[in-house]
Amino acid sequence: MKDSDFLGDAARAARWIESYRRRVAALPVLPRVQPGEIEALLPADPPDEPGSLASLLAEMDEIIVPGLTHWNHPGFMAYFCSSTTDAGVLAEFLAAELNQNAMLWRTSPAGTELERKVVDWIRRFVVLPEAFEGLILDTASTSSFTALLAARERAVPGVRQSGLSGRAGLGPCTVYVSSEAHSSVHKSALAAGMGLEQVRSIPVDDALRMIPDELEQALSRDREAGDTPVMVCATIGTTSTTAVDPVSEIAGVCSRHGVWLHVDAAYAGPAASLPEKRKLFDGWERADSIVLNPHKWMSTPIDCSVLLYRDAGAMREPLSLTPEYLRSEEDGTNLMDIGLSLGRRFRALKLWFQFRLEGAQAMRARLRSHIAQADRVAKWIETDPRFELVAPHPFSLVVFRAVPPDGIEGDEWNRGLLESVNRRGQVFLSHTKVGGRYVIRIAVGSARGTDEAVREAWQALQEEYDRLAEAY
Amino acid sequence: MKDSDFLGDAARAARWIESYRRRVAALPVLPRVQPGEIEALLPADPPDEPGSLASLLAEMDEIIVPGLTHWNHPGFMAYFCSSTTDAGVLAEFLAAELNQNAMLWRTSPAGTELERKVVDWIRRFVVLPEAFEGLILDTASTSSFTALLAARERAVPGVRQSGLSGRAGLGPCTVYVSSEAHSSVHKSALAAGMGLEQVRSIPVDDALRMIPDELEQALSRDREAGDTPVMVCATIGTTSTTAVDPVSEIAGVCSRHGVWLHVDAAYAGPAASLPEKRKLFDGWERADSIVLNPHKWMSTPIDCSVLLYRDAGAMREPLSLTPEYLRSEEDGTNLMDIGLSLGRRFRALKLWFQFRLEGAQAMRARLRSHIAQADRVAKWIETDPRFELVAPHPFSLVVFRAVPPDGIEGDEWNRGLLESVNRRGQVFLSHTKVGGRYVIRIAVGSARGTDEAVREAWQALQEEYDRLAEAY
Repeated sequence: MKDSDFLGDAARAARWIESYRRRVAALPVLPRVQPGEIEALLPADPPDEPGSLASLLAEMDEIIVPGLTHWNHPGFMAYFCSSTTDAGVLAEFLAAELNQNAMLWRTSPAGTELERKVVDWIRRFVVLPEAFEGLILDTASTSSFTALLAARERAVPGVRQSGLSGRAGLGPCTVYVSSEAHSSVHKSALAAGMGLEQVRSIPVDDALRMIPDELEQALSRDREAGDTPVMVCATIGTTSTTAVDPVSEIAGVCSRHGVWLHVDAAYAGPAASLPEKRKLFDGWERADSIVLNPHKWMSTPIDCSVLLYRDAGAMREPLSLTPEYLRSEEDGTNLMDIGLSLGRRFRALKLWFQFRLEGAQAMRARLRSHIAQADRVAKWIETDPRFELVAPHPFSLVVFRAVPPDGIEGDEWNRGLLESVNRRGQVFLSHTKVGGRYVIRIAVGSARGTDEAVREAWQALQEEYDRLAEAY
Repeated sequence: MKDSDFLGDAARAARWIESYRRRVAALPVLPRVQPGEIEALLPADPPDEPGSLASLLAEMDEIIVPGLTHWNHPGFMAYFCSSTTDAGVLAEFLAAELNQNAMLWRTSPAGTELERKVVDWIRRFVVLPEAFEGLILDTASTSSFTALLAARERAVPGVRQSGLSGRAGLGPCTVYVSSEAHSSVHKSALAAGMGLEQVRSIPVDDALRMIPDELEQALSRDREAGDTPVMVCATIGTTSTTAVDPVSEIAGVCSRHGVWLHVDAAYAGPAASLPEKRKLFDGWERADSIVLNPHKWMSTPIDCSVLLYRDAGAMREPLSLTPEYLRSEEDGTNLMDIGLSLGRRFRALKLWFQFRLEGAQAMRARLRSHIAQADRVAKWIETDPRFELVAPHPFSLVVFRAVPPDGIEGDEWNRGLLESVNRRGQVFLSHTKVGGRYVIRIAVGSARGTDEAVREAWQALQEEYDRLAEAY
């Protein structure tokens, strides 16, 4: 492949993307392949000879597309939507060419400073105080892990040097999440050497919100037992049902106990830009750290997770190390000092492109349109005796359950219904458990979503319900 | 910005890239900006209104380009070259549109299986046994950390559940690297809660290679003291000087002591595809895990790090957790079970594009051309009395020192020379320390590099040497 035909090849790639966009809504959201089927279509050995882009794009259509789960399909409503817009797609194109690595300020002054700027734009967009600064990492798991390491260093001073094991007098190091929280906090505690047994699962109320009194008691109990509480993670918009923990009260508990408060707003964070949703974010400005993922509800291409924090020194403390070959005059402004990864790709570019090309106003309007779609779905469910809501729907996820015909077990009915709906191909929904019961999740919130697709999803649920009921 | 003008905007973006390519060689590799200068050119608030791509690309030229360190500049020879080719740039363009998240097989069957396939192609390309499988992570730091967690679980069974602290009878958990190893292993040990004091720095010989006898003694000493050795990391191609640890002998030591062997071949790994370089990789096939970064010497866009391992079960053990909303029929084939991140972008696509569009033969030829360039630089240095080599140069990095004129301190002279050369703008070199002395690194190995640029770098070194000697 000759670099000299770049313009021609770029045009071929762009036309391929356009054609994919035109076709995607007609493809099944979930591909109809069996495990191993795609691998079997590819040769065992890497090609020795060069090939043309035209032939490769033909293979994209023959081998890859039939095996894609179409995250940008209007019927993708399974996990939190990760969708993309032109702004992000074009920015990634340019970022690959520029191939910046903003580990040091000097290895990418523009990468470093644009990252600081767009993170500050995010902070202003979601109206957090100036005391917060931050950086961009890959995923919420990494962001929460990075926050946990700072919290661990604060709770166990010197752990950076001596580690956790064989330390006289140091008991178990504990972390607190609601019983509805995302597994990423558990994984972070495992990775940090704190152990799964030390992750305290705090009970929730009927609205699936962490109960602050229970948190308070757990902290007191653990302190008395000689444990070292390291971090509390409150969630605004849990992955399972978008439940909202009472952050303001939790912040009070954390402050009394001197424990680091991390807020997981990975999915729901952008909604803080809407005045009518501000009350759900009450108290998050008191957090030590907050994670918010533009690659979820801001429609930025994956991966892009923003970690915000109040104390940059505390964030640098657990890991910063500068080998000789990376010493530079600008030590102190280097993003590599926070987090584990040394290499840092130019993720800031896509946020800049989005803000500049779309504008904050349109970004807020898009969030509102998703919330309106979710409200509509919820209303349809409420007014149809075959279905019932099982949790509040403050954002763009609706969690519900199909009421089974008489004599049929509910979980089995809902599982069967979900499978039937997904098998049709034009929509992809997912499930979770609420109070031990199997329930269905419909997540709108895609930049490629449409009112029409939402109506079709609802229609599919009704039709499959009736079809199954008849067949039963 | 309307999605409907995608083809027009894609063409504008492609033309911008082409124009950047035409200009880049004439720009200073290191930008001439002061910290804060770029940030000051951007508004405090995010734009509220949408803008055109044309105006944004103009801002790219006015604000961003003057602040870029040009990693794809032919004169970039500072850190290990991270350069890109058309194949990778086009693949990232498509990957952003498809926006796959291969956390579960079912969320991207093609993403999951293409990743397995291209990782196997890499394994075949560098001629490792079939016993190795692997996956793609972002950076070598993350890959080594992921390996360390598996090693930790093997050395301290049950650490996943109970953690490291407050565990009766568990002493310090130790890690072993050469005194020349990359800081990423130290950072990994910190993150994993093992502590910096537990990273044993094993002495090196004159060729900067870890001394196996010293490793053997350190392991015995630590075991006797009640410590728990967790992992040995041997490096093939250290970041500082590309020194090659004697992996075969180290593997023998690890095997006798029952310790996990991790091989860091992040930079040099691709050279294992060249028969004439195979002897440098002797014994790496006995490792438990190996990291190799295509985003370094394979010219894949950042980020792309391949982690290879023998025991997939051991890799899944430390962190795998599946919350209810992610349970699927294909549990067991899900890439999210290894490593901390849940979200996984479509990095496999760029490796596939490279192998298909460039072919393995051309990829080997490119490596050879870089090695030839490095050999030429080394020969120039050897035959010029103003300079001396200070370390072997088995790959594409040459480490040397300028011999100062009589009466001048050597470190100061080399520092001054490096600064003068970098100030000229057409080349960017870096430094390290060898045996406590300040030395200069010239790293060829860029897909955008040229013989001409290497000659210019050498000429700049000679001219600045003479200019400084005259001015002195």
